[in-house]
Amino acid sequence: MAIRVLHFGLGPIGAAVARQVCTRPGLKSVGGVDIDPAKVGRDLGDVAGLTRRLGLKVSSDAAKALKAAKPDVVVHCTSSLIRTVLPQIETILKSKTPIVSTTEELVYPGYTHVRQAQQIDRWAKNARVAVLATGVNPGYTMDVLPIALTAACERVDRVIVSRVQDARTRRLRFQQKIGAGLTTEQFQRKAEDGSVRHVGLTESVAMIADALGWTLDRITDEIQPKLASVTISSEFLAVDPGYVCGIIQDGVGYRKGEPAIRLHLEAYLGAPEAYEAVHIEGSPRLSMRIDGGIPGDVATAAIVVNSIPKVVGAAPGLHTMLDLPLPSFFPGT
Amino acid sequence: MAIRVLHFGLGPIGAAVARQVCTRPGLKSVGGVDIDPAKVGRDLGDVAGLTRRLGLKVSSDAAKALKAAKPDVVVHCTSSLIRTVLPQIETILKSKTPIVSTTEELVYPGYTHVRQAQQIDRWAKNARVAVLATGVNPGYTMDVLPIALTAACERVDRVIVSRVQDARTRRLRFQQKIGAGLTTEQFQRKAEDGSVRHVGLTESVAMIADALGWTLDRITDEIQPKLASVTISSEFLAVDPGYVCGIIQDGVGYRKGEPAIRLHLEAYLGAPEAYEAVHIEGSPRLSMRIDGGIPGDVATAAIVVNSIPKVVGAAPGLHTMLDLPLPSFFPGT
Repeated sequence: MAIRVLHFGLGPIGAAVARQVCTRPGLKSVGGVDIDPAKVGRDLGDVAGLTRRLGLKVSSDAAKALKAAKPDVVVHCTSSLIRTVLPQIETILKSKTPIVSTTEELVYPGYTHVRQAQQIDRWAKNARVAVLATGVNPGYTMDVLPIALTAACERVDRVIVSRVQDARTRRLRFQQKIGAGLTTEQFQRKAEDGSVRHVGLTESVAMIADALGWTLDRITDEIQPKLASVTISSEFLAVDPGYVCGIIQDGVGYRKGEPAIRLHLEAYLGAPEAYEAVHIEGSPRLSMRIDGGIPGDVATAAIVVNSIPKVVGAAPGLHTMLDLPLPSFFPGT
Repeated sequence: MAIRVLHFGLGPIGAAVARQVCTRPGLKSVGGVDIDPAKVGRDLGDVAGLTRRLGLKVSSDAAKALKAAKPDVVVHCTSSLIRTVLPQIETILKSKTPIVSTTEELVYPGYTHVRQAQQIDRWAKNARVAVLATGVNPGYTMDVLPIALTAACERVDRVIVSRVQDARTRRLRFQQKIGAGLTTEQFQRKAEDGSVRHVGLTESVAMIADALGWTLDRITDEIQPKLASVTISSEFLAVDPGYVCGIIQDGVGYRKGEPAIRLHLEAYLGAPEAYEAVHIEGSPRLSMRIDGGIPGDVATAAIVVNSIPKVVGAAPGLHTMLDLPLPSFFPGT
């Protein structure tokens, strides 16, 4: 019996998830929800960019769609922010359906959103279903992979992670989120109001600290613009010299006054060399590198889909990648 | 309250585990068992190479030692082979104590030792405790890390793993296990009777296949000698040109006639460049590399110690690294 999946949120990531679900025999899309009037009422297959129609109309009424579709799991891809998604999560959990979400703040909410995390945990336990938020970052490259690497260590002194991405390969919304095309003044304003930034470094630092049993003094999360030195074009944008082509962002966890966890993220149009790098200082010292990096959009959708069977099989409550079984590809059979 | 650890087997790995337990505040050594007359009756601290005595005498009687020490977990490091350890496992489980073992064949026994694995699972469930076997390889570098990497993929076609180790950095017993110092004739004889080989490639191939939901036609595990071209010396051995300085071993899992999983291991004295490399062919293609590699002996002991809290907290039965929570360093607090 295939696992019945309802898609809540059909932006680029939600649509990518629907396309992956379509290719895996053990999963079946049974409904779609979105608030975008351009999507509501259309066939889910068309909205998600599938090669075929599914005979399922995208609905704007989540409660009704959940009742009609009776999914085994909801894939929830709407917003980075817990305050935005809280009522959506409540609606889904009222239908007693497990959730895999891409809400970045929910990936490891215990540091910045304790109260809301407890609320979701209570709802999930009342509904007797599991909830997980995950994605490529936060949820994988800058937290789960480094944590898995520490398993080979008898002592860990410091964790240093770098992720450099050429944002030309990412979706338009991502390029906007990192401020591509802005002036430095516009960038500063948007960085201050939070509309330009990567959401998740604080969550990743907190996840690593908890995995290692470290109590942190504080976590900092600082952002600066990367300026184009020549004209750089993506499929969606062209950025002239002197304008912002992306972000450089650093999340640091301080322990006993020292920077014990350093997460360095560069995401800009035209980064010459994409990679993931993890350095564990300790015994033994370990350095891991993924040349070319992990492409963000396909990997986020993949991690979400690959997490579905683990969430469906998990104990009721709000989970994190820390307490679920070893992440792995799920073939859908 | 510290977790009380009894050490069953005090060879190089068992002793390394005891030394690591000694440095972690949340763990406490409460007893040692070994059959070696040179160890029995001596203080566990002396036998394990600690800087201080523990006031605990190494015993040759496991059942008695278990009864006296009342450990929360047994770290079991005696043999690679299930048939050798089966009575030891039975004795430990009769005392209703969870086990973390380094028995390579037990790391993923479902392919080659189904009956014995079911037996251990029954014993563990009757005792209401968990059992896990793990280590750096099998248990981590050539299976767990590649599997964790596939979580970022929407499709996996092939998994290729290479591990190259300079065996000069390993313990004497390891150097003997890989045939260092033998003639090619001696090597062939010992490879045939199984006394020279790395135990675990078949187990790692089977673990990867199960994680990916792949049914394999067959698994091959082939070994050849690496010959010294110049004289190579380790702390323990000197190998003249023309003699064996280690092994080259290949484990391959065939799926629909194709080699879908390839594990390539080189472990010899004087390997110029140690590394771990994982290539996932699929979408996306991913290549991970750990330059310098993961040093085997300290990492095996570390992975064992880091697994202790996960095993103590797990449901009764025989587990594998696939179903326990994300591996991570355990600070012992």
